[in-house]
Amino acid sequence: MTFSVQELAERVSGRVEGDPNRAVHGVAPVASAGPEQLTYIVGSKYLRYLADCEAAAVLVPTDLAVPANGKTLIRVESPELAFSTLLKVFHPPRIPPEGVHPSVVLGPGVELGTGVSIGPHVVIDGEAIIGAGSIIGAHTYVGYGVRIGDGTRIDPGCSVLEGAVLGKRVRLHCGARISSDGFGYTRGPDGPVKIEQIGLCILGDDVEVGANSTIDRGSLGDTVVGNGTKIDNLVHIGHNCSIGRNCYIVAQVGIAGSTVIGDGVRLGGQVGVAGHITIGDGAAIAAGSGTMTNIPAGEIWSGRPARRHRDWLRASSAFYKLPDLLRRVSALERAAEDIDDEEA
Amino acid sequence: MTFSVQELAERVSGRVEGDPNRAVHGVAPVASAGPEQLTYIVGSKYLRYLADCEAAAVLVPTDLAVPANGKTLIRVESPELAFSTLLKVFHPPRIPPEGVHPSVVLGPGVELGTGVSIGPHVVIDGEAIIGAGSIIGAHTYVGYGVRIGDGTRIDPGCSVLEGAVLGKRVRLHCGARISSDGFGYTRGPDGPVKIEQIGLCILGDDVEVGANSTIDRGSLGDTVVGNGTKIDNLVHIGHNCSIGRNCYIVAQVGIAGSTVIGDGVRLGGQVGVAGHITIGDGAAIAAGSGTMTNIPAGEIWSGRPARRHRDWLRASSAFYKLPDLLRRVSALERAAEDIDDEEA
Amino acid sequence: MTFSVQELAERVSGRVEGDPNRAVHGVAPVASAGPEQLTYIVGSKYLRYLADCEAAAVLVPTDLAVPANGKTLIRVESPELAFSTLLKVFHPPRIPPEGVHPSVVLGPGVELGTGVSIGPHVVIDGEAIIGAGSIIGAHTYVGYGVRIGDGTRIDPGCSVLEGAVLGKRVRLHCGARISSDGFGYTRGPDGPVKIEQIGLCILGDDVEVGANSTIDRGSLGDTVVGNGTKIDNLVHIGHNCSIGRNCYIVAQVGIAGSTVIGDGVRLGGQVGVAGHITIGDGAAIAAGSGTMTNIPAGEIWSGRPARRHRDWLRASSAFYKLPDLLRRVSALERAAEDIDDEEA
Repeated sequence: MTFSVQELAERVSGRVEGDPNRAVHGVAPVASAGPEQLTYIVGSKYLRYLADCEAAAVLVPTDLAVPANGKTLIRVESPELAFSTLLKVFHPPRIPPEGVHPSVVLGPGVELGTGVSIGPHVVIDGEAIIGAGSIIGAHTYVGYGVRIGDGTRIDPGCSVLEGAVLGKRVRLHCGARISSDGFGYTRGPDGPVKIEQIGLCILGDDVEVGANSTIDRGSLGDTVVGNGTKIDNLVHIGHNCSIGRNCYIVAQVGIAGSTVIGDGVRLGGQVGVAGHITIGDGAAIAAGSGTMTNIPAGEIWSGRPARRHRDWLRASSAFYKLPDLLRRVSALERAAEDIDDEEA
Repeated sequence: MTFSVQELAERVSGRVEGDPNRAVHGVAPVASAGPEQLTYIVGSKYLRYLADCEAAAVLVPTDLAVPANGKTLIRVESPELAFSTLLKVFHPPRIPPEGVHPSVVLGPGVELGTGVSIGPHVVIDGEAIIGAGSIIGAHTYVGYGVRIGDGTRIDPGCSVLEGAVLGKRVRLHCGARISSDGFGYTRGPDGPVKIEQIGLCILGDDVEVGANSTIDRGSLGDTVVGNGTKIDNLVHIGHNCSIGRNCYIVAQVGIAGSTVIGDGVRLGGQVGVAGHITIGDGAAIAAGSGTMTNIPAGEIWSGRPARRHRDWLRASSAFYKLPDLLRRVSALERAAEDIDDEEA
Repeated sequence: MTFSVQELAERVSGRVEGDPNRAVHGVAPVASAGPEQLTYIVGSKYLRYLADCEAAAVLVPTDLAVPANGKTLIRVESPELAFSTLLKVFHPPRIPPEGVHPSVVLGPGVELGTGVSIGPHVVIDGEAIIGAGSIIGAHTYVGYGVRIGDGTRIDPGCSVLEGAVLGKRVRLHCGARISSDGFGYTRGPDGPVKIEQIGLCILGDDVEVGANSTIDRGSLGDTVVGNGTKIDNLVHIGHNCSIGRNCYIVAQVGIAGSTVIGDGVRLGGQVGVAGHITIGDGAAIAAGSGTMTNIPAGEIWSGRPARRHRDWLRASSAFYKLPDLLRRVSALERAAEDIDDEEA
């Protein structure tokens, strides 16, 4: 696959500075790009890589001052976004063939949209609706009455159980479990008694769920994940949670039931969020932290229990001074006793 | 589906106050129940919802004083338990049809009890025994010689490997891995050498295991989970652990090998429990905590490393005062120096 | 299965002290071994078990002084290693039959080595190469062009996606997800935009991956796990990580993207490792800890944020003295005020 720099620039509405006819065969990071590859830098701190860079062309921000050194540049608003677009030109995602594999088991009343691809050994229970152009990978199970929007892609080995409602262009990675039962029990005479979970599990458009993550259906109400939210691997989202739009939820995060998370929230890896609390729009929680209290919109919190990031930074830096502090306080106490003795 | 208030009351041995003939079509939480729905409250703090509640009837505790305002009440010992019973009346769990799907692969000597339902693409290896009335969901693998008790339900995509012994009415959610190998190695001349894991993985009656959780088989001895214990999603239980009866183990908990956990223990989300320790009956560990030491029966512990909850509360509240404390100690030291100077 | 003590000793190059003709029918831990079983102890602290031990023979270290009490001993360099060898003699792992099950779906151009065993309902996409003697368990999916080395064993329900390159004698436990997409996005005009992940996911020889663990493929570069590294259940390894040889990575560890981990590193359960950092050869991180900074070779670190283990031990022990320390500082301040008052 070969394109001229000019052809690539046009695909991302970029402006060429240098040789528009140079041939590009592929893409690579700036540190390793060869003379027939396209690369990119996102800002001035990466300029140092350009001196030795042999790339055919470099995507750079529109307004970045780049030393004139004979490099061919493609000026774009967001080099990373442009690069991600051109990456797909050279490495288009492999799309399985349209159609229903003969090993697929379909229940009664299943509706398949046009152009779907249903892979080997898939099982789809009755009344489920699969939107046009959707791809269901091998060994995936789709439960009774599930609704899946157009252009959704489910990788092999997922479970999408009764109660699931998936939007358009949703992506589930291998082993994701959508609409599994929430953890709901009441006390019976002989031990815990299960409370049937009957709510929905609604994933908005463009939601992505990582490998082996689990999102439980609502108990009486619904669990909701907003449009554009991206969820990494091994994440747990409890029943009745409401997650906003365009959030980033990194690997191994756990969110307990009935918690409300706003739009654009970022949760770092292994974060724990208690049940029945609220995380405001645009808030962020640093990796490894855990919160049992609400977090206001736009704030960054850290620690277990979490507090404002700067408060945690100070306390956490003081933490390793604690043994020394104990010694200092003991010294002060001894000094105070000496004074008392002197005074006595 | 319609029932009179009286009919529903009889199913939960309740006593009606108000109109026993009112029609009920469904159930809902107290905050949103409509005039044809049944709801419940568990205690006086929810009485404030009753003023505006239009529900056909409200399950309330036997001894709760409820203002006379025309509501129809059903008095029961445990409204939540009664509600969970009536929830199943209106929303009976969908049961797959009896029988063995033609795509199922059965090894030699497999014994299937009466009334089992074995879903599409299930694989059951030789000599396995599936109890009467059990349901094995699509794509589940059952290993050689596994024994599964009556009335057990395994959701799609699980693995129940050789060495597993499941009791009656066990419930496995999607992607649960039962009797996988424990993490056991010894040092060989060229690196770690695997120690074969040959123990059992025994789940008692009424155990529930959440989606994508993993419970390893014993190494030489056995891993055991007691009757009635409920395990949430993405939990890990290491080899040779012994978990008691009626425990609650919340999502993403990890329990290292050979640890003994008593009856009625509650472990919050993301708790870590070290190997070879003992957690006493009725103990609880707060979400996000980690313990490397034994915990006595009946105590609540928190923190990493965990301590008694009230000690952790105090220490953890003091933690964020540390930067201020450092300043105060420095001030005391300066003052002490001034005194020394004055005395000198 | 019966062997004489002498026969077993020869299999592990051991030297018999006592009765070489005694019959052995099985193996057991030292605390429970019966008169026809073999057992082992690794050092002097287990000598106390020998007094009441009825075992047919005991594997003991070459140089361990054992009281003469009529026991039959087998002297070996590493009793645990010898025991693990003899364990397999009595409990050989069950090997599924060679061949390709009729329900398997093979894409075009798949190459199967001699003696492979491909279990029921397995799906292998085009151009994949499965090495000689490999075992692919039921319901596993192998993606386009994947390469799997000789003698690899994949348990049921795994996904090995495009980009995966597995060495020889790799072992994947149930539900492992290899070469799933990394968590890579850039900001677009309407929210996050996915960056296609095109790198490889390379597992070296003798790597073992636990149940439901996930290892993402590289974004532009590759994710690499070195020879002999052992990974427990529910572990997450992000894109572009480079993990060394002979590491132990315990359950629920999370390693963020682009981090470099040396050889022989040990990560305890639930450890979190930030992205773009370096953990030196032979370093260890205690269970439940999290590091955002590099760790030098050979050091043991603990805590969140992690520090050298002894520093963490001191600080963490001081932590629970904090409430008392606050009182002591207040007392000193009051005393200082009294002095000021006296002086005034």
